[in-house]
Amino acid sequence: MKYYQKPGVYITGVGQLKVEKTSELSIRQMGASVVKSAMKDAGVEKADAIFLGNMLSGMVSNQEQLAPLVANEAGLKGTEAINIEAACGSGGAALRMGFMAIMSGMCDTVVVCGVEKMSHEDKDFITKSIATASDWEKEGGKGETFVTLNARLMQMYIDKYDVSPDNFAMFGVNAHKNANINPNAMFHKEISVTDYINSKFLTSPIRLFDASPICDGAAAIVLSKYPSASNNSPSIKITASASSTEYIAIGDRSNPLAAEGIQRSGNKAFNMAEITANDVDFFELHDAYSIISTLSLEAMGFAKQGEGWKLAFEEEITPTGKIPVSTFGGLKGRGHPIGASGVYQAVEAYLQLTDRAGANQIKKEANVGLIQSVGGTASTVFTHVLVKEA
Amino acid sequence: MKYYQKPGVYITGVGQLKVEKTSELSIRQMGASVVKSAMKDAGVEKADAIFLGNMLSGMVSNQEQLAPLVANEAGLKGTEAINIEAACGSGGAALRMGFMAIMSGMCDTVVVCGVEKMSHEDKDFITKSIATASDWEKEGGKGETFVTLNARLMQMYIDKYDVSPDNFAMFGVNAHKNANINPNAMFHKEISVTDYINSKFLTSPIRLFDASPICDGAAAIVLSKYPSASNNSPSIKITASASSTEYIAIGDRSNPLAAEGIQRSGNKAFNMAEITANDVDFFELHDAYSIISTLSLEAMGFAKQGEGWKLAFEEEITPTGKIPVSTFGGLKGRGHPIGASGVYQAVEAYLQLTDRAGANQIKKEANVGLIQSVGGTASTVFTHVLVKEA
Repeated sequence: MKYYQKPGVYITGVGQLKVEKTSELSIRQMGASVVKSAMKDAGVEKADAIFLGNMLSGMVSNQEQLAPLVANEAGLKGTEAINIEAACGSGGAALRMGFMAIMSGMCDTVVVCGVEKMSHEDKDFITKSIATASDWEKEGGKGETFVTLNARLMQMYIDKYDVSPDNFAMFGVNAHKNANINPNAMFHKEISVTDYINSKFLTSPIRLFDASPICDGAAAIVLSKYPSASNNSPSIKITASASSTEYIAIGDRSNPLAAEGIQRSGNKAFNMAEITANDVDFFELHDAYSIISTLSLEAMGFAKQGEGWKLAFEEEITPTGKIPVSTFGGLKGRGHPIGASGVYQAVEAYLQLTDRAGANQIKKEANVGLIQSVGGTASTVFTHVLVKEA
Repeated sequence: MKYYQKPGVYITGVGQLKVEKTSELSIRQMGASVVKSAMKDAGVEKADAIFLGNMLSGMVSNQEQLAPLVANEAGLKGTEAINIEAACGSGGAALRMGFMAIMSGMCDTVVVCGVEKMSHEDKDFITKSIATASDWEKEGGKGETFVTLNARLMQMYIDKYDVSPDNFAMFGVNAHKNANINPNAMFHKEISVTDYINSKFLTSPIRLFDASPICDGAAAIVLSKYPSASNNSPSIKITASASSTEYIAIGDRSNPLAAEGIQRSGNKAFNMAEITANDVDFFELHDAYSIISTLSLEAMGFAKQGEGWKLAFEEEITPTGKIPVSTFGGLKGRGHPIGASGVYQAVEAYLQLTDRAGANQIKKEANVGLIQSVGGTASTVFTHVLVKEA
């Protein structure tokens, strides 16, 4: 890795906590821990700003204005620190703000952090809190949850394309297999297709192994205007950052299965990076539910409409496949601490592209990574392209 | 107003709702209303992104991911839309993100919106929800509210500088006088010094007229890379955008009365705009409490430490004074719908600088406006400088 002085937006260090059902750390400690480890990895002691992705802290931890609290806890008193919220896409949103901050010329070094503490004794309260990411008037307030909303999408898909729910099995199998060898993952247990088929329906057709878990987690990356001179923390360039939105309520969309928000965000990102789906070596997608993975693969051009599930079925999403996804376990296996997931994706893509992914390293050479963070049932979508430079 | 092609960050249109105790509109309607009116004022039909300042929507309206909901309601389906939260400084934070988005070269036209719906039948719930902007472990969770926290600051000030609480009267008198002639203000009733002195203590030494009200409101501005060609919506340049933070818990600060967060944010802004306090024609400050106004005037260099209140006492903060503040009534008189206040400040400064302030127009020529949006008891501070170009 050489030292360039070509300005851009580079990831120069990463930090993450193991995803857990319940972290012993407070939410500020969780955030501070990964901010400090990412800065240590990047070899920097100061940052111009911190952008923090989080959705639930106000409701669950009675703590708004979390970003300066995390900055202070990390010893960065005085540093600009702002909370960014885009529901389950909050991590991707924080990354996009960090990207813009560097591009603006106003910041040379930025920390992007995602943190979520979802552990709570009252599970119904958490389910309801997550449902505030839906259109509350039209969905959450009428009793819908993210399980029932995704079940609607999945049933629409099954009906339209005449596929069996069993055909989605390999998304969960791949995620759990990759999580099993990731020390930072929540789950360390492989599952078989039979386990998937025997798992209970949360809301038909969504099975337990179609859904990501409620958990605590935090991750952070350092973004810099220039690549790092350090061999310990090689630099990866972010060549595209793009976002788009869609109607939040599924019932308002003309064609929910087209996932137009993903399409628009993805097209913008591919145009900016001047690549196509063919150039992508792996895809950290938002596999909160198997149906979202399927729609993402289709909307991003990796499969035709109605055939996204086939990539999983034919094992093309595994670390040896055509388009590896969820290489560290994804939202399902590593875990989905909501506002942190988009930043975990960036950490994992960085590790793949710098050959630091250990047992999770994909088998082909990883030069171009795609990451996508999604809020709601694909109503807010952030897409970033990460590239290893020669 | 001439048409320049000099790139920068320009405000090209504004929109606001009247601040009310209870708006009849839903929160998405409030946001959409001002987004549409600001875009109409600017003469634009599309935007590249919307940054939405809001603090309480998740807790109070069960609605996270509010920004895309507002975008959709405003007819801007697909537009990038992200929530920005920095407690009571959320509006200023959204403005800063909009500024960065234009500076990044990734957006030509951005809408910055602030919206807050605080009306709720359970006032204790609202008080507690607002207290999530404090350090919950050290303050809010121990029963502190923003009234008690600001009372602590004010008492410290009174003790240190040996002043009477009555000396703060003119902040409220000025605010209510200016609000009285602002059709968008919540309060339309002047108060006298006697009214101030006779008003009840919420928590001593904070009186009713030292505090801003709980209310509903929304405001929006359009930011553009180039000034507008339209005479109807003249353009005002934002020449500085800066932010800093401080320990959130008052007890953690080495010198709470120095308001270091305000100092740092202000110095950065003055440096970026290449001005000093002497160049500022008016100051839309964060007068959520009279003590914060006082500390802001001092930390920004308009008065020596211990003498900020004198500017009010000597009527130098009125529309005819040396440094007019709260020219449309400020947070106290116009109202303080938390996440919207920072955007109302931008709207009002724009109106002053374009001679569209009507009865609220300050008496001297307004060329340089300073606005400052503050989260918590001055723990997150956003400062912007707005300039009328020749």
